[in-house]
Amino acid sequence: MSEEAREALARLVVDVPDFPEPGIVFKDITPLLADPSGFAAVVAALAAGGRDADGVVVVDKVVGMEARGFIFAAPVALALGVGFVPVRKAGKLPRATHGVSYALEYGEATLELHEDAIGAGDRVLVIDDVLATGGTVAATVQLIERCGGVATAAAMLLELSFLPGRATIGDLPLTALMVV
Amino acid sequence: MSEEAREALARLVVDVPDFPEPGIVFKDITPLLADPSGFAAVVAALAAGGRDADGVVVVDKVVGMEARGFIFAAPVALALGVGFVPVRKAGKLPRATHGVSYALEYGEATLELHEDAIGAGDRVLVIDDVLATGGTVAATVQLIERCGGVATAAAMLLELSFLPGRATIGDLPLTALMVV
Repeated sequence: MSEEAREALARLVVDVPDFPEPGIVFKDITPLLADPSGFAAVVAALAAGGRDADGVVVVDKVVGMEARGFIFAAPVALALGVGFVPVRKAGKLPRATHGVSYALEYGEATLELHEDAIGAGDRVLVIDDVLATGGTVAATVQLIERCGGVATAAAMLLELSFLPGRATIGDLPLTALMVV
Repeated sequence: MSEEAREALARLVVDVPDFPEPGIVFKDITPLLADPSGFAAVVAALAAGGRDADGVVVVDKVVGMEARGFIFAAPVALALGVGFVPVRKAGKLPRATHGVSYALEYGEATLELHEDAIGAGDRVLVIDDVLATGGTVAATVQLIERCGGVATAAAMLLELSFLPGRATIGDLPLTALMVV
């Protein structure tokens, strides 16, 4: 990761206490998005998750999860020159989909992916803003596998290391630009 | 707009009949997103909404609306080298917000913007995927004005001309890359 990305993350991801509820410290990424050079440096750092040590692109698709994941995944796909595939909440994608449900703190949620969005054997980079419990990443990996693809890496801005995200995603190689 | 963007839109925005309900023809943009050169050409065409005739950038911020608007607005902001500002559904933004409610077919929705996201006098380009009734664009313009900024232009992939979007947004200059 570049020094510029490191500096931008330290300065522009801001703690907001007591959001969404008392006792929770929310990491606000909107100051980073408002800073064009910082945002660009972070997109470049995430895109490195789709390159090998020589800088060669080694993925066929970038998947991003609704909604904040779209903000990073779309520019990462453009930077790598590969297709962008959205994973969406249930009922949003118009054609035949695969769906995977996962547990939330209260109840469950379902994520969907178009059945033809990933080809057999496609190597896929998974991009999101935050790794928390790992539920959305694990569901996304399952969706990619249902299509016949392989999630080869994931890259996130932020990992909340006090939550079991790493354990949930198993042996998927994950780069987190910041760990708290 | 480039010939490449025009060709990509014609080929990669696909009709899906009877979604989300019988009789509605949904315009599916996911084949476009999966095509890296087509997606890049369309981002460049949308970004032209933030430049003058000489190609000089004439906006200070790009605003995009949750969720599909994020897919285009974030790359457009990076292409123009200006900040990206997300407009979100109620309760998602962690700091002090302005909120504007608008009518849906059944009930209403509220969009929010951080109070400090737009500076006084900032010129703002509004990006979304589809202009339909114009409700979300009109609400977004109000949010920008509450911050003291000015929405100087809007750019969309698609305008549904059988709906009253143009009338709803008044004299805001709008570029739609495709009109159906």
